[in-house]
Amino acid sequence: MPNPTAAMLVIGDEILSGRTRDANSNHLAIQLTEAGIDLREVRFVSDDHAAIVAAVQALSKAYDTVFTSGGIGPTHDDITADAIADAFGASIDVRDDARAILQAHYDRSGTEMNEARLRMARIPDGATLIDNPVSAAPGFTLGNVHVMAGVPTIFNAMVETILPTLTGGAPVVSRSVRVDRGEGDVAAELSALAKANPELSFGSYPFSRDGKYGTNLVVRGQDADAVEAAAAQLVAAFGGTAL
Amino acid sequence: MPNPTAAMLVIGDEILSGRTRDANSNHLAIQLTEAGIDLREVRFVSDDHAAIVAAVQALSKAYDTVFTSGGIGPTHDDITADAIADAFGASIDVRDDARAILQAHYDRSGTEMNEARLRMARIPDGATLIDNPVSAAPGFTLGNVHVMAGVPTIFNAMVETILPTLTGGAPVVSRSVRVDRGEGDVAAELSALAKANPELSFGSYPFSRDGKYGTNLVVRGQDADAVEAAAAQLVAAFGGTAL
Repeated sequence: MPNPTAAMLVIGDEILSGRTRDANSNHLAIQLTEAGIDLREVRFVSDDHAAIVAAVQALSKAYDTVFTSGGIGPTHDDITADAIADAFGASIDVRDDARAILQAHYDRSGTEMNEARLRMARIPDGATLIDNPVSAAPGFTLGNVHVMAGVPTIFNAMVETILPTLTGGAPVVSRSVRVDRGEGDVAAELSALAKANPELSFGSYPFSRDGKYGTNLVVRGQDADAVEAAAAQLVAAFGGTAL
Repeated sequence: MPNPTAAMLVIGDEILSGRTRDANSNHLAIQLTEAGIDLREVRFVSDDHAAIVAAVQALSKAYDTVFTSGGIGPTHDDITADAIADAFGASIDVRDDARAILQAHYDRSGTEMNEARLRMARIPDGATLIDNPVSAAPGFTLGNVHVMAGVPTIFNAMVETILPTLTGGAPVVSRSVRVDRGEGDVAAELSALAKANPELSFGSYPFSRDGKYGTNLVVRGQDADAVEAAAAQLVAAFGGTAL
């Protein structure tokens, strides 16, 4: 049975201007691979209402689950919650459950609740809250879309909350073999091996280190024994080192 | 006049599995921002023919220029060139100009040309070659799509070749102001400043370091004087440090 599919939407001008380098997509990719969920697509879009709505609609239709990152803070450029609501035709306003979570957090720290902070309690109707153990302001799940913070510590904590609630597939395991030969020297046999093992995927990643060329060959699949056997065949064929 | 728009397509299973963290999109984002080209969207897709074709068609239609990264090597999983050709309805085969470049490179290094390496001379009809000063195998430009290698050193060299040929806009300059206050404390005034300066964009990025919360405020725009003036207003309002 094929694994469930997922996509991620990274929201924020700071990513597209190059000012901030996205770390969340790589973290999520690793977590989903371990959970047996197949991350098929990632998109970065700017803080633009129409762009977020269009991307959410396309991704939520095409994949089983969608994760978003960014744009749920208190400032004017945090427009994700409203865009998600629009994407699903849901209404959105300050919700009592989210407001209570924020109020309790601010009461503990002696921080004043103001209009800006109250924006973080804007949650679409029908959404389920996602706990934020770092700074209280919740994420939420609406339909098959999980809406999470952009700050990596908070994003990671929210992923930890969400993942156990999802139905995963067979985790994909991988083995790497590093060979001291260029890709062009291993391509023919690698291709034959890939054809002979259609249930596995074979990747080939050239590198150059200290002026020497080499290739990392990676076998991936759900059957650990088959992956192991294929890695052994790669070592036998190319004399490399299995890592 | 609005700046030209661009999108990037990152191709490769190794990115979506989390094995490799994409570095090329951040590099390109920084370069395009300096050149006054507005990077609007980035997509990561896997080594899947249909996914690449669909993404290239969507992005090349929606934006002025598209850059792709990955999948142009000699192995069976390098399918980008054929997918780009299909996306434009162009035919593709080994081309003499690309083959001559590879042959000269292999002759110099005493490497044998074989069937796998010859795959890197598969270039769509009508495409212009992009020089690869690192390992010879060329990228290419077809329509408004620039097809480049995934290996960062080669990708960066190809970007350096392509960028001067593009018509840029006014470079976007930015100033950051670091303030020792949470986002919720600066949001109202920041929003007012954003409304008063519609030609500038104001971003707000919370951070926590050594247990202290703070916010980086970023002003971006094409008019350097206006950006400078707005940064001074931020410092006046929130007592932060302009960086």
